[in-house]
Order: sequence, then structure tokens, then C-alpha cells
Amino acid sequence: MEILKVKTRKRKEVVDITADVERIVSKSNVKEGICFLFVPHATAALTINESADPNIKTDFLESLEKLIPDGIWRHDRIDNNGAAHLKSAIIKPDLMIPIKDSRLLLGTWQAIMLCEFDGPRERKIYVSFLK
Amino acid sequence: MEILKVKTRKRKEVVDITADVERIVSKSNVKEGICFLFVPHATAALTINESADPNIKTDFLESLEKLIPDGIWRHDRIDNNGAAHLKSAIIKPDLMIPIKDSRLLLGTWQAIMLCEFDGPRERKIYVSFLK
Amino acid sequence: MEILKVKTRKRKEVVDITADVERIVSKSNVKEGICFLFVPHATAALTINESADPNIKTDFLESLEKLIPDGIWRHDRIDNNGAAHLKSAIIKPDLMIPIKDSRLLLGTWQAIMLCEFDGPRERKIYVSFLK
Repeated sequence: MEILKVKTRKRKEVVDITADVERIVSKSNVKEGICFLFVPHATAALTINESADPNIKTDFLESLEKLIPDGIWRHDRIDNNGAAHLKSAIIKPDLMIPIKDSRLLLGTWQAIMLCEFDGPRERKIYVSFLK
Repeated sequence: MEILKVKTRKRKEVVDITADVERIVSKSNVKEGICFLFVPHATAALTINESADPNIKTDFLESLEKLIPDGIWRHDRIDNNGAAHLKSAIIKPDLMIPIKDSRLLLGTWQAIMLCEFDGPRERKIYVSFLK
Repeated sequence: MEILKVKTRKRKEVVDITADVERIVSKSNVKEGICFLFVPHATAALTINESADPNIKTDFLESLEKLIPDGIWRHDRIDNNGAAHLKSAIIKPDLMIPIKDSRLLLGTWQAIMLCEFDGPRERKIYVSFLK
């Protein structure tokens, strides 16, 4: 298992980590199999979507903002990050991607997105392989 | 790895692909293990729910429609399919199902759903097996 | 494959099953690998979030309640549990967690959550391991 570390820069941010994961896949010598990603944090999550148009990242953060607004949750009284926990529980911390010919088998418009909902922080992503 | 191809027929549609995946499982000779599905598209996703009552598919599409309405996103100015990207990022493209006795170990009311959010198109689903 | 059985006690409830899964991991003799969980029900789901502050579970159920309210779905005319199906389809029934040194490699604030959306019932969770 490898650990990928990513420093997020904003309170809420979507970071494209595709190139970082691809680099770990290249070094792994796994030709065909599955890449398993897991973020061990309760206010961050992982998903896949388009990165070419950066507006999608903004739309994604804003759509979640409308659905799960800040500042109205019970947990806010303790940590003031209730919405971050809820968004993370909906998007979930686990993600699987197929590998073929030693590369991630993503679609043309797919990129791996680290969802930061309570940054800025240094986040870890565990990267494992299954054959 | 096998590739399942599905032609969707509407702009937004939920297609039950359980029988197609089951057929690939039967041919795979995997008796016990895990079936991994991945849709390499940024405006489609995979989930599991009831198929016996077709109203659930309609309810599912309408509930997502209310949460992520069409036509109000930054990305709409480029491709007019911002909502499709956002729904796909929330539902996610990956899905794992256990296999036992050479069959998908789904519950009585569970069916595998390809979620088409920007069709009609021909969609691919990658089907892999882990033992 | 092991089967974990959990009796839920309310119509809507989030149950922390981390200790139960950890016990199965300990007995499995898997030192490093992946733990795969799957709930074979169409009105329940699995996710990960904080359990230390029980308010998060309540916030999670209430946030989903606001997004997918009871009593307004086509499927309600048949089974009166349309919202439970929709929430389950969004959260999804599958979950993967890395294992290291014979333990689940969860973050400090992460716990495994069985989401009951149409209880009380006895629910099953399939627990498999991949190396």
C-alpha cells in the first residue's frame, strides 16, 4: 500500500489527483487489476468526474452547498463542520478504478477527485492494488 | 475484463443491467469472489435498487432532478449537461457485488442500475472479477 | 464470506458496526488486504463517518430527510417506503476498507455506518476479504 499526501488550500475544494494516482500505478508493476483508493478522513471524500472544465468542480461544490448548507447542524455546536461530515458520508471515502496495460482505465472525461469539505489540511489517500 | 455495452434510449433513464451482468458472471467460472463494475463515463453512474416496481426508477430520476435541477450550472454554458455531471459525481461510477455459487449475491429486491443522465448514448460497463 | 446480522430498532437509524466488523477481521487472519462489505437490502445502505459525536448520525438522517422527504413518491402507493429506496440508491450498499496489521485502516474519526431507512428489521451484511 502506498500513501498519497495532498495539501488542500481552501475550506472547500475539489482536487484532481489523477496524475498522482497514475504515477503510483506506473511504479506498481500492476498490468491488469484494480486500484483501490481510500481517504481516512471524516470530512473528505473521493469521487470521479470531469476535470477539463474547471466549472464542474465549482458546480459540484455549490450543488452540495445548496443541499447540505453550513451552520444548521447539531454537530456545528461542537466542531462547526457538520456539513463537511454529512457531505463526506454521502460521497463516501472509497473508490475503485480498473487498471489495464499498467494504466488507470478511466473514460476520456473522467478524473479522480479528492473532495475537501473542511480544509485547508494535509490529506492522506491510501492506494492499494488488487489483481 | 469484459465490456458490457448498453444502448440507452432517453435523455435520463435507469436501465436494469442485472441479467446482462449475471450472464457474464456465469461465463466467468468465478464461483466465489467479487464482481467489480465500472462505467467509464462522466455523465452516467452505477447503483443498486429495486427493479420490480418500475416506479422506483422514475422516483429516483425525479428525486435527483429536484436536488440537481437542469439549466442552472456554470458547465451548462459549455455543454448544457452540468446536472448530468453532478448527479454522476454523487452516485459514482464504481460498484462491487459479492459472488457466491457462481451467481451475484444480490438481495431479493436488489437490481443493478445503470444511471443514464445525458443520453441517449451507447454506454460501456467494464466487468472484472476478484477472487 | 461471513454474514453479520444486525437488528435495527427504529424506522430510521444509523448503527455503528465498526466493532462487529473489526471482530470478523481479527478472526479472518488477513494481515493486509481489503475488507468488502455489502448489504443485500434495497432500503438500507453502508457508509463511513464519525460516531464519537452521536449528533452526526441524527444530522445525517435529518439531512437525508430534507432531501428525500417521506410520502411523496410513486412507490409509496405500493409499499409506503419510497424514500427508503431512494436514500439507499444514493448511499449505495457496497463499501471497501483497507486492512493493515490485521486491523481496519480507518481514520481516527471514521466509523462504519449501517444506514437503516425502513426498519426496524434484522439486516444482513456480507463481509468478504481480498488480498
